[in-house]
This record gives sequence, structure tokens and C-alpha cells, in this order.
Amino acid sequence: MASSTQGQVITCKAAVAYEPNKPLVIEDVQVALPQAGEVRIKILSTALCHTDHYTWSGKDPEGLFPCILGHEAAGVVESVGEGVTDVQPGDHVIPCYQAECKECKFCKSGKTNLCGKVRSATGAGVMMNDLKSRFSVNGKPIYHFMGTSTFSQYTVVHDVSVAKINPQAPLDKVCLLGCGVPTGLGAVWNTAKVEAGSIVAVFGLGTVGLAVAEGAKAAGASRIIGVDIDSKKFDVAKNFGVTEFVNPKDHDKPIQQVLIDLTDGGVDYSFECIGNVSVMRAALECCHKGWGTSVIVGVAASGQEISTRPFQLVTGRVWKGTAFGGFKSRTQVPWLVEKYLKKEIKVDEYITHNMNLADINEAFHLLHEGGCLRCVLKVQD
Amino acid sequence: MASSTQGQVITCKAAVAYEPNKPLVIEDVQVALPQAGEVRIKILSTALCHTDHYTWSGKDPEGLFPCILGHEAAGVVESVGEGVTDVQPGDHVIPCYQAECKECKFCKSGKTNLCGKVRSATGAGVMMNDLKSRFSVNGKPIYHFMGTSTFSQYTVVHDVSVAKINPQAPLDKVCLLGCGVPTGLGAVWNTAKVEAGSIVAVFGLGTVGLAVAEGAKAAGASRIIGVDIDSKKFDVAKNFGVTEFVNPKDHDKPIQQVLIDLTDGGVDYSFECIGNVSVMRAALECCHKGWGTSVIVGVAASGQEISTRPFQLVTGRVWKGTAFGGFKSRTQVPWLVEKYLKKEIKVDEYITHNMNLADINEAFHLLHEGGCLRCVLKVQD
Repeated sequence: MASSTQGQVITCKAAVAYEPNKPLVIEDVQVALPQAGEVRIKILSTALCHTDHYTWSGKDPEGLFPCILGHEAAGVVESVGEGVTDVQPGDHVIPCYQAECKECKFCKSGKTNLCGKVRSATGAGVMMNDLKSRFSVNGKPIYHFMGTSTFSQYTVVHDVSVAKINPQAPLDKVCLLGCGVPTGLGAVWNTAKVEAGSIVAVFGLGTVGLAVAEGAKAAGASRIIGVDIDSKKFDVAKNFGVTEFVNPKDHDKPIQQVLIDLTDGGVDYSFECIGNVSVMRAALECCHKGWGTSVIVGVAASGQEISTRPFQLVTGRVWKGTAFGGFKSRTQVPWLVEKYLKKEIKVDEYITHNMNLADINEAFHLLHEGGCLRCVLKVQD
Repeated sequence: MASSTQGQVITCKAAVAYEPNKPLVIEDVQVALPQAGEVRIKILSTALCHTDHYTWSGKDPEGLFPCILGHEAAGVVESVGEGVTDVQPGDHVIPCYQAECKECKFCKSGKTNLCGKVRSATGAGVMMNDLKSRFSVNGKPIYHFMGTSTFSQYTVVHDVSVAKINPQAPLDKVCLLGCGVPTGLGAVWNTAKVEAGSIVAVFGLGTVGLAVAEGAKAAGASRIIGVDIDSKKFDVAKNFGVTEFVNPKDHDKPIQQVLIDLTDGGVDYSFECIGNVSVMRAALECCHKGWGTSVIVGVAASGQEISTRPFQLVTGRVWKGTAFGGFKSRTQVPWLVEKYLKKEIKVDEYITHNMNLADINEAFHLLHEGGCLRCVLKVQD
């Protein structure tokens, strides 16, 4: 499929974050050609995630400005650089902030999804090839973000960061499979490996927490206890598999003790889906002595630390974490898309708002206020 | 086998800890009859372990005085209480501070060795049946310790805490299979499940650390890095499988960074065998991103806490702990004794000193000063 843009610098709309905590600016941005090993993607739909908000807020010490945020999206390949063979123009794709090169020590280990191939570049807001950005405004470079930068009508990503998906999948839905939903499902299926009959606690009932509940239900958990300080979330949470709800504000006891009392000694698995280090401690300590496993899914603010008494671990609890739910992105995101098409996993149900790229500041506000699960932006005019 | 003591209160020698941090007193102690579900054991040999020293020092907030310490020993059953069927007088046994009832939620879980059946009583220094002690001096009760109290010529324990072993095993050697050696071996085999080819770091080269090294060697680890601030320990450590030695005092960098640099990204498994919460952090943080697993084996002082950045776990490291190496005591201690008799595991090599019960204060001093691995006391005259 040839397009009139191939071989050309593209000028298109993007939401540029010029400064922390200041409104994003919808701007004409120049998107350079994809170099060797790179893919230029026309983004059709992008959702917003709390990590975008975190970096935008200025609290992320690795945040670089000006930048183009966004990492949960779907689109169509516009053109590819030299040596790219796995995708071609016209392919439907999901950009993946967690790359999968299939060649590095990590990819070959069989033990982790944390490919290391392009990490140094994506962490620095640039592309590996020349350690430069492909985005500019009037000749001034704009940093990439997480190797994806999907708040733009076109973006350039490394080929190891592109999952090719079934073209029948609606891009305005499966864009969610770029981050939050797989993170929750995978935390249960890959990281914790929850067995049938288990008692599970989920701390935080946003998109990731609900996906944890959905994953736990699919794994056959007998009880799925949702923990959130906003009781309004319980009605929605039921639809994702939560069987009981505990609001810490309703109790004088520490929440870990409330859960231990509710479950005759503690839960088999717990998941922290907020990013609060105190809640991470509670999530560990509400686990059953001897075998309870707690998985950290939320991302804490920089500099914060988790702590507990070592006795908690010596008596058999296990403390783990997960990134992108342990899914190997290029291999497994297409599989998740198929599961969605077969109606084996939910996606549509997480989308509470649909807006346009031009409304992105309002969408950010909605996300931060807890007024939405996922807001999907239509990126093209 | 009938003995003249059966059915009688026994008066025998024991080392009584009357007060924290004061010399133990060798004393005539009355040892009452075993009640229902209890076993009275003639202790032949007992070793000393750091946990005895910790409680003796007064730093253990659960320590009760006066008490009879000791939990790493071997002996012969003298008599049994009502309903005891698994052992009979004359059986050679190892008292186990970690019970195994085979009936409780923990024992039946298939996931842990932490039997809960007598925990509440042993933690309170008494026996389950009547919540009283079987030890007294001139009518004044003396607390039990860890359900074992082996610094006595006779002791009374719960039947769920007695491992019956091959009578051909030398009791002055296999007494070590009551605590330290199984803890180290099991941390590797049961808790971490180290695979062949793994890179392992062991923090602290006392008995437990050396048993970790021995276990890792048996598991086929490719590198076993011993970490200790006393370089004199390295020569001995080689005999237990340690292949490299790092003394944190020789480096300006944090020890976790030293190990990461030595191993191209970190170790596959680490074991903290000291009980120092700062070292526990280092042991976690020297693990390889994506899969490194750290096991806390040492017992930290009360009130101390471990901490790290949650990012350490989110990027794939796992934090665990172990108690008695995850071994099910009554089932697996006899198996360890057989392995010793078949020369598949070391025991003799951990014994650096042999003394008499009367020398126990000197033995305590030796242990605390790091001058010995294990000191075995002959308990009978």
C-alpha cells in the first residue's frame, strides 16, 4: 500500500507537553522519516493512562520536556525504514512501550518480558539509530515518550516495539491492549499465576484493578475482594468479577487486618493497582502466612520506598511486581486481540469516554479526577 | 524399652537462662511426665545456634525468662504420653522447632512447612495440653523455648515436633539437622529452587550461609559468590562450594553494585544469611532485573524493617523468605539424615568445636564471636 506521505516528512497535529503541569498544546509537528529499524505509524486512536499523567505532572524525574506523551494506542503502518521486515505499510498495529526484540539476554531468558534492546534510547526520549528525536516543531526537537508518543497523528517507533494485529479488530477499542488491560490480566495470569479456588484482593479499582479482577475471575478465583476508598466504584466492579467490596474508610483497623479477619488468615494473592507505597505494604501484609503472594502493579512516585518487617517474608509471603503484566508484547498483544475478537476478554467495557485529540486536556482532567476508566481519543480528523 | 525413669518426674541437669544477657546456670531441673500428645526425650547432643543467642541477649521481645534454650539437638525417646503412636521409647529422634501435624490448614496446603498446630503454645513457652511448662526448679516453672528446650538432659516436646530418624546415625553429628544446615539447604532447594547454571550470591558465611553454598553446588549453580566482611572465612567456604569471594570492605561502591558489575547485570539468586536488614536490601538489589530472586534466611532483630524502591520488584525481582528451609520437619528431617548417611550432604564439616553442657557459656561466647561454625555439646555426663 503506497501512500502520498511515504518518503516525506509529515506535518500533522500532535499534543505537545511543553512544560510539566501546563496544558498540552495541539500543534503542527514535523514527523521525520523512519530510519533503519524504525516504523512510522498513523495513529487512529489513543487512550490516556495514569503514567502519561504522572510524567506530565512533573513528578517523574526522568520526564523530559518538551515531549509528546501517549502509549496506549492503535494505528496503521504508514512506512517503514530500512531492514524492517516484520511489518509493512497498511498493517494494523499496536505500538508497545515494552519492546520485544527476541534476541537480547532478557528475551532469550524465557523468564521475563523486559526486553532491554531499545531501553536506553526510549528512556532518553530518542531513537536508537542516531539518539535523536523524529519529532520537531519549527526545527526544534520534541522528545519521544516511552518509545511510543501516541498523542500524535503520526509517530515513529522502533520495529521491536510494534505488535501486528488482526486487521478486523476495531482500533478504537483494541488500543486499550497497549497498556492497562494487559497489565492487569497478565499480573494474574503470568506473574501471580492465580489458581482456581484462590482468594484474591485487588487494591484500587481503576482500569488495571478491574482487569486484575477480570483475570482472576477467568482463573477461577473463589473470592475477589475489591478494595477502594471510593465506594461508588463497586457497582461497576461487579461486572468485572469483584465479589466483595471493602472500603478502608469504613474500618478503624488497618486494612490488612480487616482482610485477614475476612478471610480466615489472609488472601492467597493480592494486587496493588494504585502506586501507593503504604497500600503496597498493606497488600503484602494481608496475604496468608505460608504462601500468600503480593504483586505490585501500580507505579509509585519517584523516591518512594516500600517497607515491611522481614518476618512477613520469612513466614512465607512473597513480594513480586509486574510490568505490562509479564506479557511479551509483539508475541502476545496479537493473541490478546484475538481473545477480544472471540469475546474471551473485555475491552469495550473499560471505555467510559470517547473524545477527540483536541479535547485532550479535558480528558486528562477526567482521568485524574477518577471520573473515567478509559477515555479513547480519535486522533485523526 | 523400659527405663527406670518412666512414669517418674526426672531430676537432671539443664542450662537455665534466668535473665537476659546473664550467664546460663547449670541447674538441677525437674522434668515432668509427658502428657497426652507429648514426648519426653533424653537429649544426647545439642548444638548452639544464633537464635538461642538472640533470645538470651534480651533483644527478642517474645523471649520469656527463666527459660531453657536450645533447639538443634538429637536424643532418644525416654517415654511418651497418652495417644502418642508415631514414636516409642528408645526411638532415636531430632526435636523440631517447626512442627508438622499433617492435619492443619498449613500442613494440608501443600504450599508451606509452617504447621500452625502448636505455635500458640510454643510461642508462649508452654505445652498445648494445659498451657503449662514441664520444667521446674524447686517448684518454680521454667519456660520452654521454641517447643524444644534442648539445653537439658531431658526435655518434653509435642509429638508433632519429633522426627524419628535412623538409629545408625551418630547423634553427636545429626543434631545439626535440627536447624542450621536444613535451613540453608532448603532455602536453595525448596524456597528458591535454584536451577543448574545459575549465579548465586550468599551473604554471610556462617553455618547457614555455607549450607546455602553447599545446596547451590548440589543444584548445579555455575558461580557461588560468598559475601562476608571477614575474609578469613573464605578458605573454609571453598570446601562448601563457594567459588568467589567478595568482601564489602574492599569496595567503595555499594555491594549490590559490586555484584551487578561482577555478573553482567546481577545474580539469579541471592540469600541473606545474617539477619541484617541493610544486607537484605543489598541482597535483593544485586539480583538480575527480570528474574532475580532473593531469599531472606537470617532473622532480623525485632522492630527492624526491610525497604527498597518498588521499582526493584516491578522490574522483575522477587523477594521471599524461608523458615527451616521450607522442609516439612517430621517428613523430611529423617530423609536428610539418610542423605547424610549416604554422604550426599555434609554435617561433620560444620562442627568446629565439641564441648560439654557445663561449658555452655564458653560455647555461647565462641558462637557470638564468630570463632566457630557449630559447637556441639555432649549433654549427658
